[in-house]
Amino acid sequence: MAELREECGVFGVFSPVETDVAMDSYYGLFALQHRGQESCGIVVNDDGLFHTYKDEGLVGKVFTPDVLASLGHGTMAVGHVRYGTTGGGGRSNAQPVVVNHIKGRMALAHNGNLVNSYELRSELELRGAIFHTTSDTEVISYIITQERLQSASIQEAVARAMRRIRGAYSLVIMSPAKLIAVRDPNGFRPLCYGKKEDGTYVIASESCALDSIGAEFIRDVEPGEILVFSKEGIQSIKDACGSAAHSPCVFEYIYFSRPDSVIDGISVHECRLRAGELLAEELPVEADVVVGVPDSGLDAAIGYSKRSGIPYEMGFIKNKYIGRTFISPGQSARQDGVKIKLNPISSAVRGKRVVMVDDSIVRGTTSRRIVKLLRDAGAAEVHLRVSAPPFLNPCYYGTDIDSRDCLIACRSTLDEIRESIGADTLAYLSLENLPRMLGADGGCSFCSACFSGKYPTEIPTDTHKNRFEQKISEKGDL
Amino acid sequence: MAELREECGVFGVFSPVETDVAMDSYYGLFALQHRGQESCGIVVNDDGLFHTYKDEGLVGKVFTPDVLASLGHGTMAVGHVRYGTTGGGGRSNAQPVVVNHIKGRMALAHNGNLVNSYELRSELELRGAIFHTTSDTEVISYIITQERLQSASIQEAVARAMRRIRGAYSLVIMSPAKLIAVRDPNGFRPLCYGKKEDGTYVIASESCALDSIGAEFIRDVEPGEILVFSKEGIQSIKDACGSAAHSPCVFEYIYFSRPDSVIDGISVHECRLRAGELLAEELPVEADVVVGVPDSGLDAAIGYSKRSGIPYEMGFIKNKYIGRTFISPGQSARQDGVKIKLNPISSAVRGKRVVMVDDSIVRGTTSRRIVKLLRDAGAAEVHLRVSAPPFLNPCYYGTDIDSRDCLIACRSTLDEIRESIGADTLAYLSLENLPRMLGADGGCSFCSACFSGKYPTEIPTDTHKNRFEQKISEKGDL
Amino acid sequence: MAELREECGVFGVFSPVETDVAMDSYYGLFALQHRGQESCGIVVNDDGLFHTYKDEGLVGKVFTPDVLASLGHGTMAVGHVRYGTTGGGGRSNAQPVVVNHIKGRMALAHNGNLVNSYELRSELELRGAIFHTTSDTEVISYIITQERLQSASIQEAVARAMRRIRGAYSLVIMSPAKLIAVRDPNGFRPLCYGKKEDGTYVIASESCALDSIGAEFIRDVEPGEILVFSKEGIQSIKDACGSAAHSPCVFEYIYFSRPDSVIDGISVHECRLRAGELLAEELPVEADVVVGVPDSGLDAAIGYSKRSGIPYEMGFIKNKYIGRTFISPGQSARQDGVKIKLNPISSAVRGKRVVMVDDSIVRGTTSRRIVKLLRDAGAAEVHLRVSAPPFLNPCYYGTDIDSRDCLIACRSTLDEIRESIGADTLAYLSLENLPRMLGADGGCSFCSACFSGKYPTEIPTDTHKNRFEQKISEKGDL
Amino acid sequence: MAELREECGVFGVFSPVETDVAMDSYYGLFALQHRGQESCGIVVNDDGLFHTYKDEGLVGKVFTPDVLASLGHGTMAVGHVRYGTTGGGGRSNAQPVVVNHIKGRMALAHNGNLVNSYELRSELELRGAIFHTTSDTEVISYIITQERLQSASIQEAVARAMRRIRGAYSLVIMSPAKLIAVRDPNGFRPLCYGKKEDGTYVIASESCALDSIGAEFIRDVEPGEILVFSKEGIQSIKDACGSAAHSPCVFEYIYFSRPDSVIDGISVHECRLRAGELLAEELPVEADVVVGVPDSGLDAAIGYSKRSGIPYEMGFIKNKYIGRTFISPGQSARQDGVKIKLNPISSAVRGKRVVMVDDSIVRGTTSRRIVKLLRDAGAAEVHLRVSAPPFLNPCYYGTDIDSRDCLIACRSTLDEIRESIGADTLAYLSLENLPRMLGADGGCSFCSACFSGKYPTEIPTDTHKNRFEQKISEKGDL
Repeated sequence: MAELREECGVFGVFSPVETDVAMDSYYGLFALQHRGQESCGIVVNDDGLFHTYKDEGLVGKVFTPDVLASLGHGTMAVGHVRYGTTGGGGRSNAQPVVVNHIKGRMALAHNGNLVNSYELRSELELRGAIFHTTSDTEVISYIITQERLQSASIQEAVARAMRRIRGAYSLVIMSPAKLIAVRDPNGFRPLCYGKKEDGTYVIASESCALDSIGAEFIRDVEPGEILVFSKEGIQSIKDACGSAAHSPCVFEYIYFSRPDSVIDGISVHECRLRAGELLAEELPVEADVVVGVPDSGLDAAIGYSKRSGIPYEMGFIKNKYIGRTFISPGQSARQDGVKIKLNPISSAVRGKRVVMVDDSIVRGTTSRRIVKLLRDAGAAEVHLRVSAPPFLNPCYYGTDIDSRDCLIACRSTLDEIRESIGADTLAYLSLENLPRMLGADGGCSFCSACFSGKYPTEIPTDTHKNRFEQKISEKGDL
Repeated sequence: MAELREECGVFGVFSPVETDVAMDSYYGLFALQHRGQESCGIVVNDDGLFHTYKDEGLVGKVFTPDVLASLGHGTMAVGHVRYGTTGGGGRSNAQPVVVNHIKGRMALAHNGNLVNSYELRSELELRGAIFHTTSDTEVISYIITQERLQSASIQEAVARAMRRIRGAYSLVIMSPAKLIAVRDPNGFRPLCYGKKEDGTYVIASESCALDSIGAEFIRDVEPGEILVFSKEGIQSIKDACGSAAHSPCVFEYIYFSRPDSVIDGISVHECRLRAGELLAEELPVEADVVVGVPDSGLDAAIGYSKRSGIPYEMGFIKNKYIGRTFISPGQSARQDGVKIKLNPISSAVRGKRVVMVDDSIVRGTTSRRIVKLLRDAGAAEVHLRVSAPPFLNPCYYGTDIDSRDCLIACRSTLDEIRESIGADTLAYLSLENLPRMLGADGGCSFCSACFSGKYPTEIPTDTHKNRFEQKISEKGDL
Repeated sequence: MAELREECGVFGVFSPVETDVAMDSYYGLFALQHRGQESCGIVVNDDGLFHTYKDEGLVGKVFTPDVLASLGHGTMAVGHVRYGTTGGGGRSNAQPVVVNHIKGRMALAHNGNLVNSYELRSELELRGAIFHTTSDTEVISYIITQERLQSASIQEAVARAMRRIRGAYSLVIMSPAKLIAVRDPNGFRPLCYGKKEDGTYVIASESCALDSIGAEFIRDVEPGEILVFSKEGIQSIKDACGSAAHSPCVFEYIYFSRPDSVIDGISVHECRLRAGELLAEELPVEADVVVGVPDSGLDAAIGYSKRSGIPYEMGFIKNKYIGRTFISPGQSARQDGVKIKLNPISSAVRGKRVVMVDDSIVRGTTSRRIVKLLRDAGAAEVHLRVSAPPFLNPCYYGTDIDSRDCLIACRSTLDEIRESIGADTLAYLSLENLPRMLGADGGCSFCSACFSGKYPTEIPTDTHKNRFEQKISEKGDL
Repeated sequence: MAELREECGVFGVFSPVETDVAMDSYYGLFALQHRGQESCGIVVNDDGLFHTYKDEGLVGKVFTPDVLASLGHGTMAVGHVRYGTTGGGGRSNAQPVVVNHIKGRMALAHNGNLVNSYELRSELELRGAIFHTTSDTEVISYIITQERLQSASIQEAVARAMRRIRGAYSLVIMSPAKLIAVRDPNGFRPLCYGKKEDGTYVIASESCALDSIGAEFIRDVEPGEILVFSKEGIQSIKDACGSAAHSPCVFEYIYFSRPDSVIDGISVHECRLRAGELLAEELPVEADVVVGVPDSGLDAAIGYSKRSGIPYEMGFIKNKYIGRTFISPGQSARQDGVKIKLNPISSAVRGKRVVMVDDSIVRGTTSRRIVKLLRDAGAAEVHLRVSAPPFLNPCYYGTDIDSRDCLIACRSTLDEIRESIGADTLAYLSLENLPRMLGADGGCSFCSACFSGKYPTEIPTDTHKNRFEQKISEKGDL
């Protein structure tokens, strides 16, 4: 786990007429691919019949022309990309989840993580429920289905379910006749919608996915809001569950989202530019060039250059052909001299004092290697600037850091980290500068629990990711 | 649907020590491949943790060395092969089904078809159940899970479940600590078990799968019996549900099973030999050679030759490389002259009066083409003998004929069929001869409902195979 | 090398109008698949432009619908299947070979083996030739190209080339405007042609490939004959090279060819039947049943039964799903008990004295295992009858036995072999009976050098199969 | 052909001891992947035996762990990447070419294009040569082989061959005992070598490939030089052929090569920076931001910003997951609104006067679309600056522009192009500024024939890329 990973991206299409909604989903998922590379799936709603295809792999590999053609046309579709873990079960945990229940059929795509899924699952199991996967999404499906029994409509069932599930969830739900977008009351994960010229509505985790299919951004789904798209038009339900302090995830801006996305009114790119500008003030240094670590450190490097006046340079070339299939060198000894993924541009840094901007330090090993690359290329000094505060606390809202064990900032002082990494100086963006980075006035708050430890919700007691795996084998079969 | 198809084959392994149970399952499923070619799956139980791999395709394609290695070792495994339908959902309907419930985890492999699954499913849905597939197996999982809540053990839950489910089911069920074999009270589908020299117990749909891994046949699982394999040994429960008249499927002998299998004490090969012998008496004819239609008509042809004294000959060569990937000719006009799959041996039939033995006539088109092949190869006369009575009624117990629409015998007289097929004479095995074919004395009865229309159980009112598909889209989303 | 393998099958199509010649080739190669399973290829001639596709693998795997479509239509095509060796170079040695030369383009498909290729190759290399493969086919291409420089036509060049190349070759050659069939003066390997109703001419290694696409057999290409198909019609050239004693390969009848083929006027199936009949006379034995080892021992078993009066039975079931992808058991200890590929039918042999007919014994290990299978299944006695004489000499004409090292018959007496195999009695077809088996009157002779050691041509001095591999590395780079 | 494409990249390894030279080649080819994406290949020399693997596809797809392992270890290897054309023959044209000849075996990897290959090929064909491919590389193999017959060593043969072949060629040649690097007298295509700490020598098209495996750059292979690596050490032969004016390709700096490479002493990145700086002087404009078109316009954009003082911004996000498998939208109408591959960052350009820097305009359609993207994102003005002069003439030295038909600059005036593209202003780098861009003093000259029309060699009369294809079908078969 040298990198942080987002859990998912969701996508939905609602068209007034039958059309190639699978193709729209395909483009949309391509634009959201950075949010999840393990598996992907699309469900097409063809007049109430659902055609599903899910598999492990990248969108471009899973959705071949034959597969896309087999999905056919329809008036609605739901799509999903899921992040990459290793090992089995990948395929069975792929989304969207499609379930049949007494009132019909439902497809769900989920981004986020519940904090009370253990309790909900236990409660359901005690009533005889069976689970095919270990994902929260199946729990949510059950809860909605249960509420559906006593609700007049699917949206009422969703509203009732929101009172029972807690945590982070941005959902796209498809019933035979409706497409529903839901965002948890805290608004942890982004969700927005837009419209194409032909009248098709599009729901997506990020606005860049709307751009990708030529849809115009309308607005973010509000925290706690249910948006129902049907032939009757769009219905917004905002009072489904009690009010909560809005707390969108700050790491979406720093790391997860694409720079060309705008989330809750804030441009990700601008946010990162400001992070760079603020960094230039944190610990000023005399230097000759500013370089960013591709790709997510580049925006902040431009901001740093702008504020500090130190010229921006291209410090590295990232090999764009290195993908999941790349075979890494067997011996670690060998790795040191190898510059396959990232190669410094010697002429840009040789003999120079270099400010190197990156977006995060997780375990420190990657940073150490990159600093060494610059020194080997002839950099006279390397000053590392991190466009985020130190990562000190686990996240329960849908990222894959849920233990402190591997976080270098939890174990070491700033100076120990600097020394371990081999940088001449090291500075993080301070916690105090986060609101300025976001450009947020006092009116809005964000979740920065990973930095501050202040969680906007209750947190789960049993936090092991594979807790359901363990539970079962411990329990045995008496 | 020019051919009849069995729904499934099941397989299970219980070893006293951790071993390569996936490899045993792999060999076993290879031997059962004729029972299902659409999809296959293996679940390995590694000390309570389940490792699953399922996919569409033949056993040899799905279980590559890498996949087999990834399943690892364990003390138990369950395997399944499923027959081929076209269209979507194939992968999600693949078995074994693995579910998590309050008391742990469970894997199920199922061969057969319930007659009350619609009722059970509706009842479960009304209590808030969700379904991921359209298969009966998921219904059975739910029922067992519900009963598990009030049972002291998994076997008690299975026994209780047997009182609720009706129809044909041969099941292999794996819990964290037990492997369970179950056969419905009628004993529609075969199920037997054996033991390897190293003490490993093996459960399989047919005895040929025991042979394939070098296990010695012990006995058939009895109709209505539950067999529990655990570290405590083997437990047999025979009084789980009320008694029923035993009625194993007669078509297993005529068509579905492999000739080298022995089912309920009767050798499939001997049964077919006897069918041929009896056929020789049904409508004696003067002829020069007897040939069988490969592969399932060969045994009966040998029997026919033996009884009639007409020499046995090899009439056809079947291309053994023609598989699922074969691209058939586009134009039907072209098809007539094409002998890709089956080519007659001219020297064996030219100028001769040929008795051609086949195991069934479904729609009649295949028979017509084969008769024509013989005539084109120079046969002077072609006398078709069918080693089964006419197929007149749908089967509700796990084969894919559940409508009379396509059965030629329902629409035409014997003479019309003969003329349509182009045979000089045509005879079926008579219904009266079935017991003699089986070699059964008066003590045992078989299900021959497809020939006789006498069903040994209630039959479902709604028999459409995709009834759940339809239900959902009709119901909509009120 | 537990089995003997043929080197190749060739196929050609010449159509009066542009049509789907790739599809015809596809069907034809399917019918010839038994002659080579390593690689296959088709070259389509679209008005002088050649479209080629070759790859390792079976016909059905290599020629997907997309690949077939990409080959397009044309008036001619050449196809090839090649037998399976392990290791590298498979793809580069795939045929047909396509070469460009001064007078145009040429595609060649070759079945056989030259005995003077080493000399020819050396001679060419001394003149500066380069070779991309290690196959004889490239040598033949060169020779024809060289002769083409001083010939008025491609057929004249072929005729001149025939005076230089020696050994076994059945060739299909395609130039921009002509399709040419060539068979060496000895006629070692089969080659025939036929015609479809639409006027398309078809050339194939065996007549079963003509059947497969609905073409009517016209006649065999004669030993030493060149047949030229062009818009001007068919031209036969028979005096290309000096006369040689005809010596078609006898093993084509015993083992290589399909029973439904007719080669040089002799039905393969009838030949095998006669082999069985003659075997029944070689060493009469009292027995209860005769069984054949599938698939190639079945015909002779029927013949044996006919002559001896001992009833024919089905002794084994061969798993038809076991293909190249099958993973064999790791431990040999384990192998003994495993009956994956072949399972005896116990009910057919238990307590009986069994005559088991097979077509050959190469190393003896396979025979030993099969005899043991019968004994384990309860056979009281096993009498092995081999429908060919003992294999004592290497073949230089296109099979993969070119050393005596692995031939059991070269090292052991008949009784040692019998004992090693575990049979009660053992008899081969005698050398004297070969002509009777072929049904040949005195006028025709066959090559039975593998049995008799009498080679109809000079034989190569350096016979190592990979002699070119070795030569190069020994020679180094002075 | 909306993009220019380089023909190839070459790579070679010579190790003092047997080691994993395939793995080194794999990394090296990854770093050279931008030079060719159609096919790739590696040949490993294991003590004189060559193990080859070539296929269509990217390095990471073709060289799976299994394939790499199958290549084994050795002391030398040659690798190649080839650019992407459509249609058949891709696999057979893959390199390295491996040929066997009288003195042994030889593998060749070639980057470039001969101008007299037609003449050489005709000459060879008249002597009876056959060609398996349509590539120049096979011609070069033949010429070297012919010269080898009368040479004392492979290097002498190469030297002789250099007197006969004309045009662009950077070659890596492997014989059983030697690895040879050759660069044509003009030095059109780059070639350099370096050394790893363990003593392994590495030859590569670009220095970035040396970096990728941790080898230290030693120097460029000089134009006209032959470098021989053997157990005796390194031998340099510089007088192989008459002297020629050095004329390395200027487009290597502008477009083809990776920015982190240094070619003939000039950093590609610095060159592009200077191009941007010079562009800022060509047609000064008042603007708010400078953006580059990813990826190859970014360096020049930074240079432009530096010289003009206009702030550098990130104008676009390029989807890094879009690869060869991407399915593009069917309707062109639809394409306009789609921003899958490239999405502008609205917040960076909205309301601003934007200078957009790109490296070339080929047909103009891509530029038009990108300008429109900026305007749709709110750019007030778009000023396009191209970091190269207009492309006016075909290239015969190894790029895929060999006709003027599709070059917009050949058909339109500057203003027509500007209008067609929709830019407010448009300026190219002037031809006069090229030497300044290269930083070259008067001593060195470059080939800029594509801009100037001044070719440093004779040029071919028949320039059609597929001339050999045509020749053959025209010629027919008399």
